[in-house]
Parts: sequence; C-alpha cells; structure tokens
Amino acid sequence: MKIAILGAAGMLGAKLANRILEGALGDAELTLIDRVMPNAQPSATSLQLDLADPDAMDQIAALNPDLVFHLAAVVSGQAEAEFDTGFAVNLDLTHRLAEALRTLNTNPRLIFSSSLAVYGPPFPTPVPEDFRPTPASSYGTQKAMAELMLADYTRKGFLRAQSLRLPTVSIRPGAPNAAASGFLSGILREPLHGKAAPLPVREDTAVWIASPDITVEGLLHAANLPWETANDLNPLNLRGISVTVSEMLDALERLAGADARALVHAAPDETVARIVTSWPQSFVTSRATALGFPVNTDIDEIIREYCAQYAPDVLRR
Amino acid sequence: MKIAILGAAGMLGAKLANRILEGALGDAELTLIDRVMPNAQPSATSLQLDLADPDAMDQIAALNPDLVFHLAAVVSGQAEAEFDTGFAVNLDLTHRLAEALRTLNTNPRLIFSSSLAVYGPPFPTPVPEDFRPTPASSYGTQKAMAELMLADYTRKGFLRAQSLRLPTVSIRPGAPNAAASGFLSGILREPLHGKAAPLPVREDTAVWIASPDITVEGLLHAANLPWETANDLNPLNLRGISVTVSEMLDALERLAGADARALVHAAPDETVARIVTSWPQSFVTSRATALGFPVNTDIDEIIREYCAQYAPDVLRR
Repeated sequence: MKIAILGAAGMLGAKLANRILEGALGDAELTLIDRVMPNAQPSATSLQLDLADPDAMDQIAALNPDLVFHLAAVVSGQAEAEFDTGFAVNLDLTHRLAEALRTLNTNPRLIFSSSLAVYGPPFPTPVPEDFRPTPASSYGTQKAMAELMLADYTRKGFLRAQSLRLPTVSIRPGAPNAAASGFLSGILREPLHGKAAPLPVREDTAVWIASPDITVEGLLHAANLPWETANDLNPLNLRGISVTVSEMLDALERLAGADARALVHAAPDETVARIVTSWPQSFVTSRATALGFPVNTDIDEIIREYCAQYAPDVLRR
Repeated sequence: MKIAILGAAGMLGAKLANRILEGALGDAELTLIDRVMPNAQPSATSLQLDLADPDAMDQIAALNPDLVFHLAAVVSGQAEAEFDTGFAVNLDLTHRLAEALRTLNTNPRLIFSSSLAVYGPPFPTPVPEDFRPTPASSYGTQKAMAELMLADYTRKGFLRAQSLRLPTVSIRPGAPNAAASGFLSGILREPLHGKAAPLPVREDTAVWIASPDITVEGLLHAANLPWETANDLNPLNLRGISVTVSEMLDALERLAGADARALVHAAPDETVARIVTSWPQSFVTSRATALGFPVNTDIDEIIREYCAQYAPDVLRR
C-alpha cells in the first residue's frame, strides 16, 4: 500500500510515520511530505514540498497513493492572526489536494485531521454527536468547510475521505507552536523540564484532550477500518478526556512535585482565552467508542506517556 | 440606503426588487445585477454582469452598497450534474463577493440565500434548530460551506452577513428551471395553465415549502431586523409548511378541478427523487417564529397566491 503523510515533519506526522514503519498498517511504501524536510527514515521516501507550490499537487498525484494522511495545516492561533493565510492553506490547499486525488480515478482514501474547533458556543455539555458546528475561530471555520467539501467529493466517488475531529493534543513535545491551545502542553511540559510556563486562562477552564500516542493510534485505527464503516461515521468526533487546568496542575504536582507546579504562573491572554473557552469541554463519543477507538485513562497517564519518552527520571512516583 | 440584488433577474430577485421599489426597506438606491439583463425598472439601475467576470467584484464594490442580497446561484440539479461549475459559482464567487465587500471597510450587510439542502439524512422529523448539516447534494454542500465562510467574515468584522435557509419555493412562475425541486412548482403551475406535468417522485413524498411572496417577505424581514438580532440567529432556518405531494394534488383538484389534477402523470426520476427525499420534510422554526418571520397558512393559500398573479379565473372556488 502506497501511503503519503502531508505534514510529516510535524509532531503527529513524525509519530505516525514511525508507527507505520513499525508495520501498524501492514506493508507500506511510505512517502513523508512537508515544507520543511521531514526526518529521514531509512525505509521511507522524504519529499520537501510546500503544498502551495504550483506543482505540489501534481507531485502528490504522481505518487499515486492508496492512502493519504492530511495533517498539514496553519494552526489556530496563526489562522486567527493571519486570516488570508488560514483560508489559503487550511481550505484552498485541501480543496486542491482533493482535486489532485480526484484526477487519479483510483478513489484513494484520505484521512483528514479536523478539530473540535469546528464547534462554537452556545453548546450543551457534553456536545451530542449530531450537534451543529458553528465555529468561533477561523481555524474551526476552515476545518468545518473542508470537512463538508471532502464529504461531497467522497459522495461523488472521487475519493474516500474521512474527517476525524481531534481533541486538543497534549502533551506536545518540543518547542511551543502557534496554536491557541499550545499552553495546554506548555503548562505540563515546561515544568517537567524545570522551566517556567505561562498560563493564559483561568484554572477552572475545562478542556478536551488526548495524548499524542492515543491521537496517532486513532488515526491508524481509522485507516484500518473497513471503508463502509469509516464512511458511515463521517465526520467523527474522536475520544478524549475532559479535564480542568487545575486538575492538570494537580496531576503535575502529584507526579512531579510542588516545585514543578510552582513553575506555572498566571499570564492572562484574552485572545487565547476567548478561543480556547469557545471550544467544548466534553463530547458524546459513543460512535467512536463502539468502533474501538482508543482513549487515555486519565491525565496522569498522559503525563507518564510524555515523561517516558522525553523526560525520564523526573517523576517522583 | 444603497442596495444591490445579485441574481436580480431571477424570480425571487425580481419580486424582491419590486417590493423594495414599493418602499419595503424605506428610501433605497437600488442596483439590479444579473448575468442576463435584469428587467428595467424606472427607479433602479440595471447592471448586466456575470459574477465570474474578472472585474465583476470590483464593479460591485464600486457601488459601495450598504446592503446586498446575494441570490445568484447554480441551482441544485445543475450543481449535481456540473460539479465544478457548482463549486465555482456557489462557493468561490460567494467567497470573492465577501472579499470585495471586505475591502470596503464599511461592514455592509449581506443577506445570503441558503437552503434546507444543507441538511441530509439521517435526521429526525422535524429537524431541530441545532441539528448538524450533512448535505446529500453538492448544492447543499456549497451552501453550507458558504454559510460557514460568511459567518467567519462576519465574526471578524469584515461584513455583516446573515444566511437564511429557504424552504423550497413553490409555486414558481414561468418556465421550469434546473432545480431538482422544480417539479414542486410544475405539478401545480402546469395544470393551472391546462398543461401536462410529470411527477418524478412518489405521491407520499413530503416536502417543506413556502410561496414566492412569503419567501420575499422573509428576505425583507431579515433586512429590517436590528443587526444584533439577525446575527444572533445565524444561519436561520426560515418557516415553511410541510405537505405531501398528494396533499398538493388534492388541493389542486379542490381548487381547480379533477381535470387539472389529471394532467399530472407519474414519470419517476431516480436522480431527482434521491435529491428531494434527502431533504428534511419539516423543521422546528421557533426562532424564526419568535422574530415574526412570515409563513403560509396552507397549500391552498399558496395556489391562490399564484393564480391571483399568473392565472386569474382558473380557480373553481
């Protein structure tokens, strides 16, 4: 099976590539695509490509992929600050990708990383599975529009797209990105490395999160579903856990000590707070559950997952 | 107030123009825009313009409108048959219109004619106001995407758009158009003029309809709402009545005689049936009702409205 990952240099893309190279989707001929050079993998092809390049979509089509993971996006904070860039990348390039795959006439599968940001207030808690998306951010708008477009390309038989609405991913390793949700990784990651971390929202802010490993396993699980099953649940809200910031900090203190928690300091940011509090805090995910999509046990598990990979020896218990 | 109607040569556009020239929106400097020459009106400007022309949006912006009615669209049947045309006109041109209005920096109001076709199965009957749109047609997809885009332009303060999801409009006067719903006018209009009419669906098919006059009054009512009220209900499902085809034919017989009904003959069309039966048959419209949007009394009233304007003296009672 020929597989392409768009956004392969990103955190999820790189983890996904590793799992595919471990055999998570069987025999795979894998191409890693990103506008920055994806990490070289001995058994994968790396292709440095800006999706906005005039011939980028032709190059992707030339790979004749059976399965594409489209993880490339302008993140929420940047899409809010750079309105035109957000629409150009998150909507127009996704549309051009769909067109490129359509020309293949092979009906390839496409897994599209959408987001809980397609929802906006007012909404009930938890959000029912049939609730209307009214995004309160440009990022959420672009994701919701792309979902609709891909569903119609799918209905017309041009490709077989499945849109997965990911929870906020935490704990992201590495440097902070421009996502409004970035602090939901930072307030745990930075203290685990002995660094200070700003908290832009109130501690009673509740969020819907999943760990990087669980998120990647969800992407793989979707790709392994029979198409009829996947299409029946399109778009699909993925499973997450609902936690408050103070519960996250309690877990940090429980596992890494009061010194770690003390590194988090209030630094209110109205723009970030407005975006993050416009997202639902919890969802009904009975469809994803019935299909066996994975979920984290609790916030402690999420912290342990991070530490095992990036910060060994810092946990007190 | 400077008002522009896009799609002014269409049936709704022409009726809307007449009502505005009667003073329905107060003093108005009205420009009628269509790709076919709009009917000349002594106190309005007519502008023959294809929205796809390279300078079309500049010309619209040059009008510096305070209020735009965007009724121009590729209808459902054509959008299904001509996939690329539908996306180009219904989505891309609407996006370019939003961009043109954004450049004015005057935050103009825009009333966008969306459709019940944004909904697709499975759905409950009636459809709740907070139910998710999953269109089962390209037309519905393009309308749902445009709604999302316009809502984000509105949120950002670039314009003040309100999307109104219109019921199927029946009875349309004049020649049949390419809408999949066209027969819902034809099975009444043609017999009222003594002509045969094909019925492409089963008689127990239920539909959600509104008369042309009620639809136009709804557009005007939206334009007259204080912006804060209008924006709070965005997008808004407009009021309609739920009737079956057989109830429509019973009314035809009741008002125009058995001879009229006998002119309707079964002519099954699977494509039309698939599209029309993918639309909800009724809606919860408590928000539109609370705001005083108008609605037809019953199917008899809809037939009488048509006959009074286009077929006087044919009604038996």
